[in-house]
Amino acid sequence: MIRTVYWENEAVVLLDQRKLPVAIGGSLPLLVCRNYHQVIQAIKTLAVRGAPAIGVAAALGIALGMRKVTRDRVALHQRFAKIATEFSHSRPTAVNLFWAIKQMKSAFLQATAADFSSARISQRLLEVALELVDNDIKTNIALGEHGQALIDDGDAILTHCNAGALACAGYGTALGVLRSARQKGKNFSLFIDETRPVLQGARLTAWEMQYEKIPATLICDSMAGSLMASGRVNKIITGADRIAANGDVANKIGTYSLAVLAKAHKIPFYVAAPLATFDLSIDNGCDIPIEERAPEEVTHIGVKRIAPKGISVFNPAFDVTPARLITAIITERGIIKRPGKKSIRALLVRDEGKR
Amino acid sequence: MIRTVYWENEAVVLLDQRKLPVAIGGSLPLLVCRNYHQVIQAIKTLAVRGAPAIGVAAALGIALGMRKVTRDRVALHQRFAKIATEFSHSRPTAVNLFWAIKQMKSAFLQATAADFSSARISQRLLEVALELVDNDIKTNIALGEHGQALIDDGDAILTHCNAGALACAGYGTALGVLRSARQKGKNFSLFIDETRPVLQGARLTAWEMQYEKIPATLICDSMAGSLMASGRVNKIITGADRIAANGDVANKIGTYSLAVLAKAHKIPFYVAAPLATFDLSIDNGCDIPIEERAPEEVTHIGVKRIAPKGISVFNPAFDVTPARLITAIITERGIIKRPGKKSIRALLVRDEGKR
Repeated sequence: MIRTVYWENEAVVLLDQRKLPVAIGGSLPLLVCRNYHQVIQAIKTLAVRGAPAIGVAAALGIALGMRKVTRDRVALHQRFAKIATEFSHSRPTAVNLFWAIKQMKSAFLQATAADFSSARISQRLLEVALELVDNDIKTNIALGEHGQALIDDGDAILTHCNAGALACAGYGTALGVLRSARQKGKNFSLFIDETRPVLQGARLTAWEMQYEKIPATLICDSMAGSLMASGRVNKIITGADRIAANGDVANKIGTYSLAVLAKAHKIPFYVAAPLATFDLSIDNGCDIPIEERAPEEVTHIGVKRIAPKGISVFNPAFDVTPARLITAIITERGIIKRPGKKSIRALLVRDEGKR
Repeated sequence: MIRTVYWENEAVVLLDQRKLPVAIGGSLPLLVCRNYHQVIQAIKTLAVRGAPAIGVAAALGIALGMRKVTRDRVALHQRFAKIATEFSHSRPTAVNLFWAIKQMKSAFLQATAADFSSARISQRLLEVALELVDNDIKTNIALGEHGQALIDDGDAILTHCNAGALACAGYGTALGVLRSARQKGKNFSLFIDETRPVLQGARLTAWEMQYEKIPATLICDSMAGSLMASGRVNKIITGADRIAANGDVANKIGTYSLAVLAKAHKIPFYVAAPLATFDLSIDNGCDIPIEERAPEEVTHIGVKRIAPKGISVFNPAFDVTPARLITAIITERGIIKRPGKKSIRALLVRDEGKR
């Protein structure tokens, strides 16, 4: 299995996704973060990306930042608060980041309330972060098991961006569903949107599918509509970066267009996301903060300029797909059909005691 | 004015669009074709592209191929047929190519029927080709004059690909409309789809707008839907590569998606194209041949690989937008609102005697 984020020798090790694709079978480009600043930098620069992966990377990063700590209680609290705040400013849209910070904060407060030694607090934080990594993979496997029921033999599926092992600690959400379906012996064809500007589809999903020997065809984002019109796609599945209480989904820019096109062509549109992606504090998608990134992501490919110097650029990294365009949201706890405030709350509240 | 295709010193001179963008004010990358094979190669490799530009380049290319000709009449006819056939195989979708070949063939047959000398036939073919170049610019100016009536002060307009001076002998179709509107003193903002895979929006339209000092903002194709949802775009205008008798429009891949999104957001969707782009021999868009191009257009940017080796690619260069999604087609003879078989025939038949 591809491991995207893990702990090794007192460091947070990340599969450096800026350097993918590399030759299958070749050595993987790893980024070894020996201090928490490096983890924040990795999140900001997309060395690690994908909502669940950002979450677990932040958890491990916080644990890393708390490895060598003072015995002074006030200083200890101050350090934790500083690190947590810095991580919370790394990227704005994916809620899994804030969810992970919250989990770590809760563990920290429990440990300090129990009057643990500084060393034991540090150890406890690492344990919790490692649990989050493990749980992310378990969650995705459960999510995949539920979601594969929606995939039929002979399907032609379209996916956008990378909601795979590379977007998580491992296994993946949208691509986890496809992995599960393959394990059940289902055969389907897969189209991958290249996903401009950062090309997560072309660079990451195409690579991940090759790595797993799942046949796939790469297209440009603008080709999806014409594929749907010609009947060559019958299902769409994506991940999510944040889901509001009413089921509106923030995900990689271009997801909204796909959902409108899917509706126009009567094609089911599925979103696969763990419960940690839901943000019940937000009523609807209008309130989800949308990150705008540097113009160079659009005007350059690597160091090569592809647009004239000085041209204005608008580069939102995400868009919001309203719940009415979403056929179902697939979670580790089950499938929410026709997602809405009621159906989401029903699933999440059932789970609340256990979280 | 930017000149894209012209005749100079017994050669067809093309602005080499593969090498754009270059610095504004710097020297333009010209491709001087001294034999017709070079013109065909330029069409195939997109050194010259855009339906009207391909048409006039082919006309000049045929004239070039007929400059040094035999006195033998059978050989003369054979040479013309050979050259015309080779041009007709250069690109399949844009009908302006076939229209231009037809114009040249008709001129050739008239000249031979009149028993002109070979030298005079050669001269006549060049005259006709130069007329087509001149007429293309005049046509676009007339088209722009009609179309500018649809543009209002304060509009926020989205365009796809390059339907500008670079797609024609000069002036442009969709961008010609915007040029005209500017000349009337109308102020509007412009968004440009980068237009993957060949990036005609980022490389050509962005450059052309800078060249003309028309402010514009570059986006990725996948951002258009979310721009529409947020109310930041209120009109869309594109060119066309072929228009069927019923008003279905073949244009750069991604046009169809934009039209579906425009409909969903109640945004007018305009197509600007000269009458030469209409193909009344084709009932509807299903019969328009859609060119599929090399996978490397998707997997590489220049020499840089952006997708893993061996990944399958689907790369159609065009798609078909059904007439029902098109608010109006703008031609040099007037605007066809709610285009359909009847309204199109009415405009074209009116024109038939004059062509």
